[in-house]
Amino acid sequence: MEQTLDFIKTNEKRFLDELFDLLRIPSVSADGKYKNDVARACQFVADKLKAAGADNVEICPTKGHPIVYGEKLINPALPTVIVYGHYDVQPADPENLWTTPPFEPQIRDGKIYARGSCDDKGQVYMHIKAFESMMKTNTLACNVRFMIEGEEEVGSDNLGTFVKENKDRLKGDVILISDTSMVANDTPSIEVGLRGLSYVQVEVTGPNHDLHSGVYGGAVGNPIQILCEMIASMKDKNNHITIPGFYDDVLELTKEERTELNKTPFSEADYKKELGVDELVGETGYTALERTGIRPTFELNGIWGGYTGEGSKTVLPSKAFAKISMRLVPNQKSDKATELFTKHFKSIAPKTVKVKVTPFHGGEPVVTPTDSVAFKAASMAIEKTFGKKPIPTRGGGSIPIVALFEQELGLKSVLMGFGLDSDLIHSPNEHYGVFNFMKGIETIPLFFKYFAELSKR
Amino acid sequence: MEQTLDFIKTNEKRFLDELFDLLRIPSVSADGKYKNDVARACQFVADKLKAAGADNVEICPTKGHPIVYGEKLINPALPTVIVYGHYDVQPADPENLWTTPPFEPQIRDGKIYARGSCDDKGQVYMHIKAFESMMKTNTLACNVRFMIEGEEEVGSDNLGTFVKENKDRLKGDVILISDTSMVANDTPSIEVGLRGLSYVQVEVTGPNHDLHSGVYGGAVGNPIQILCEMIASMKDKNNHITIPGFYDDVLELTKEERTELNKTPFSEADYKKELGVDELVGETGYTALERTGIRPTFELNGIWGGYTGEGSKTVLPSKAFAKISMRLVPNQKSDKATELFTKHFKSIAPKTVKVKVTPFHGGEPVVTPTDSVAFKAASMAIEKTFGKKPIPTRGGGSIPIVALFEQELGLKSVLMGFGLDSDLIHSPNEHYGVFNFMKGIETIPLFFKYFAELSKR
Repeated sequence: MEQTLDFIKTNEKRFLDELFDLLRIPSVSADGKYKNDVARACQFVADKLKAAGADNVEICPTKGHPIVYGEKLINPALPTVIVYGHYDVQPADPENLWTTPPFEPQIRDGKIYARGSCDDKGQVYMHIKAFESMMKTNTLACNVRFMIEGEEEVGSDNLGTFVKENKDRLKGDVILISDTSMVANDTPSIEVGLRGLSYVQVEVTGPNHDLHSGVYGGAVGNPIQILCEMIASMKDKNNHITIPGFYDDVLELTKEERTELNKTPFSEADYKKELGVDELVGETGYTALERTGIRPTFELNGIWGGYTGEGSKTVLPSKAFAKISMRLVPNQKSDKATELFTKHFKSIAPKTVKVKVTPFHGGEPVVTPTDSVAFKAASMAIEKTFGKKPIPTRGGGSIPIVALFEQELGLKSVLMGFGLDSDLIHSPNEHYGVFNFMKGIETIPLFFKYFAELSKR
Repeated sequence: MEQTLDFIKTNEKRFLDELFDLLRIPSVSADGKYKNDVARACQFVADKLKAAGADNVEICPTKGHPIVYGEKLINPALPTVIVYGHYDVQPADPENLWTTPPFEPQIRDGKIYARGSCDDKGQVYMHIKAFESMMKTNTLACNVRFMIEGEEEVGSDNLGTFVKENKDRLKGDVILISDTSMVANDTPSIEVGLRGLSYVQVEVTGPNHDLHSGVYGGAVGNPIQILCEMIASMKDKNNHITIPGFYDDVLELTKEERTELNKTPFSEADYKKELGVDELVGETGYTALERTGIRPTFELNGIWGGYTGEGSKTVLPSKAFAKISMRLVPNQKSDKATELFTKHFKSIAPKTVKVKVTPFHGGEPVVTPTDSVAFKAASMAIEKTFGKKPIPTRGGGSIPIVALFEQELGLKSVLMGFGLDSDLIHSPNEHYGVFNFMKGIETIPLFFKYFAELSKR
């Protein structure tokens, strides 16, 4: 392994240069106008995988953005690791809040600033470079298959079909994913739970055209006012979500599990300071770690309607819109949550408006095992490179693919992520530590090594 | 007068062509990018006034958009009419809802479709062409002064200063304004009351940057959710506005006045059908005519925050915004309403957010007399051209200048408007009947004639 580590250290600058080339491609999957850029990022990943030594590299078309597949099968007696990641990124807006442009990566204070630097291009590229390093130094300890998709940020709509149609190519022993975060660089951790997701857009229509608010105001239902009233009613004073049946399937943790979870280092004072808020909110009876980890949520991701330009316009608009996402926990189901929401939201609409609900995408909540060979291998690898045993944590985000893999391939995942919560993923000024990027590249070969060794026993 | 009417009828096509030239200039005062266009519209009005025969035509600069002044003082023994109007227009968005582009006027079914066709370029231009017609046929019966401003749609912020500094140039007997509507072409009416206005923008800030809604959702106050809750709380179940003290100064009409007001022809069925709504809303205990005429309102004119683009983004945004206007009735005061709102809105904000309120512009409610010489002259003129005596009505909109004129110049106004409520002012597909445009040009000379005659007595 020393040779491999030497190779990694010697090539740090080149690895970063290549990552920067990938970060310069605005592969925003949510917005049709970036379609060609998404395709360019896909090609880039395929080329680099091939150059690193992968066989049978293929850009697999889907109904949406394509999936890159590649493999190195060195010995059928060795275990096979399936590396999953995504080359698409979140939209960069509001762009005016970025210190430097989102698609012109720059290192400041040891951090790479760019959209996708952490989520997930930076973390995907660690795997490609770790693979190259193992190949160049003859230390690859397992078979490996790569599956890098381009639709994670829009719900991985076409990955299910791909997985179902490629079960032969996806035979393996574990899914290895670096798309999550650690508590801190001096408190390494591995996420063992992820929330699911239901994402919807709602449209509330009042009058059939925009009206003069002076002439009509007072007599005609204002769709913005009504949308606000409907949204306000979705939570009670304890911040419980009011959708009937929403909590029916929620798995309550035992007292012991909750005590364990709350051992994760967490300073409310630091958290509030970092966010610039005087008070936190949340469901009565739960800690902040529980509210973001083991409890479902109802969050407004966007709202718009009427005049939003400069100055004033006295309009009583025809329509108002909102984007809403609900995070789900075991054993909730995404489709059921969407259905319960839709039914309830329509039922509370007054007769003065018409309501339309459009489901976007969903994902199922997952819990990954902590007693598996793969988890142990990840834990040992991180302990070796970070000098500290990682703690298991519950993450608030969603990676729908984890549940899908389990269902379709019968494989568990290990979420060996190297980001930090403060990396501003999905926000302006997203960044990723050069330290984390390099530590990741060093840790991955160790995971392969320990996973092979532990699997033998 | 027959000669004048002949001149008007002979020149109909030219009058319309000229109006179209004015309508082609996108003089949107709210948006800085149209500054040059606003200046072009101002120059156009000044040129046409001069060509029509006005003396001392001047483009008077202000801190904002300029004011056009012009006059024709034929005889100090005759009364003087001050014609007020505005050459600026509302923003045209959402532009995609216009059947034909907002600044490419087109006549369809006898109606002129264009932003500003009714509000107020079409109505202002009636006055310029009526003036030209009287000048060309030697029938001008009063002295006349024109004051056409370019900031009515953004609150007439600089008109007060102009009026105060130009009291000599604004000596007269009445203000004549055509910037309102009639009940119907077969039910002519004159508005005798206008609501005042308080317009504010609110900004609610949660965390100091956009967050990943999965990672932070559940523990951090979402400014969209909180803004919605704050807005929802602004009205109680009877649709009363909950701002403490808001109704304190509201002048309640007598039973007789309300009975009179409700005699205005109004079909709730037609109204709902025209707007495409199943039910109306409003303050308990008042009719639709009262809710839009004699009662104050609280209306959302715009809202925005978070991700509003295509597809989905799982963001917990830092900020959410809304534009809110309150219509005021006698004896409410705009500044006081703004102050009461600001105080209350800040007081209901939870500690999880910070709230900023920016007042935009306001205007005072007014009631104009129905027993004045000017009102009688307007009534007689309309009866002559429409063949029916106009009824007095209370309008829901606001023309802040009316209260300002009364206060600074001691002059009452006559609101001789020729629009219809269905003209879609402030909305896509604003239009103005060619019939109304021409009737207006015919009616104005009669107003001058009757006003001169009645003033003599």
